Amino acid sequence: MGFFSKDIKTMDDLFVHTLRDVYYTENQILKALPDMIEKATDPQLKQAFQMHLGETKNHVTRVEQVFKMHGVEAKGVDCPAIDGIIEEANDIAGEVQDKEVLNAALVAAAQAVEHYEITRYGTLMAWAKQLGRNDCASVLQKNLDEEKAADKKLTQIAEAKLNLKAAS
Amino acid sequence: MGFFSKDIKTMDDLFVHTLRDVYYTENQILKALPDMIEKATDPQLKQAFQMHLGETKNHVTRVEQVFKMHGVEAKGVDCPAIDGIIEEANDIAGEVQDKEVLNAALVAAAQAVEHYEITRYGTLMAWAKQLGRNDCASVLQKNLDEEKAADKKLTQIAEAKLNLKAAS
Repeated sequence: MGFFSKDIKTMDDLFVHTLRDVYYTENQILKALPDMIEKATDPQLKQAFQMHLGETKNHVTRVEQVFKMHGVEAKGVDCPAIDGIIEEANDIAGEVQDKEVLNAALVAAAQAVEHYEITRYGTLMAWAKQLGRNDCASVLQKNLDEEKAADKKLTQIAEAKLNLKAAS
Repeated sequence: MGFFSKDIKTMDDLFVHTLRDVYYTENQILKALPDMIEKATDPQLKQAFQMHLGETKNHVTRVEQVFKMHGVEAKGVDCPAIDGIIEEANDIAGEVQDKEVLNAALVAAAQAVEHYEITRYGTLMAWAKQLGRNDCASVLQKNLDEEKAADKKLTQIAEAKLNLKAAS
């Protein structure tokens, strides 16, 4: 069966558990993004989500690579955090009628997702290094860098355009 | 009753809804921190959590101030995102026996909370400015700065000490 938190005894267990948390997270985002792409009406935002869908597929592959490097099975564990973040995003995005307000809400939802991933990859990298797995840390760094870049891009889109429109 | 997402029609509605989200969040953190302080065995980490408990009380007061400035009632809305983040933290922290591994898990959990707040305050500040409420943005900036500083401090504690001990 799964790897439950009650099985966490060592730093290595904690690393593997959190890797499985982020694996589940990336897969949930893969499922959520097509709907966000469809809902976004701003062309720049739609394009940013589309680009991030491609990146997310690579993130899943990289996390699988880290599982393999570390000699553990690639599997997810339930992650109430990302479930809650996506639930909240769907809740908001499902109700807002005004297109520009909806775009602003979609950006905020996507940034909450990015920040969850940023904190988890930051943690995983620190733990990988302390466990002497600099090779794993290097792979995780690529995902972290792309999540940070995606977050920054969303801020730029939001500040430059969407909010101005929505408040007009 | 509450302010539900189906009532969101304008940018102002979205701002108020998200302010209520973060108000709920801060209050949930106020409830969660004493348990984290009790569980932390590293003196530096315990002290950081204690300091953040004091800051969190100020954050609640500042969010109430923004409600007042904006002329809306101070109340929370359910936030499945922070509920999920805290549920995950309790799940991990409740099961880990080894003290140093537990401290590392507590830092990671706290950083997930910080990042959720960082993204929400960042969003709220951008929206406040677009709505012409630079006064509200200034108050929110103080909370954002303290959340970022708390996150940075946790990274320093984790990297300098906890992970090294836990991996030894």
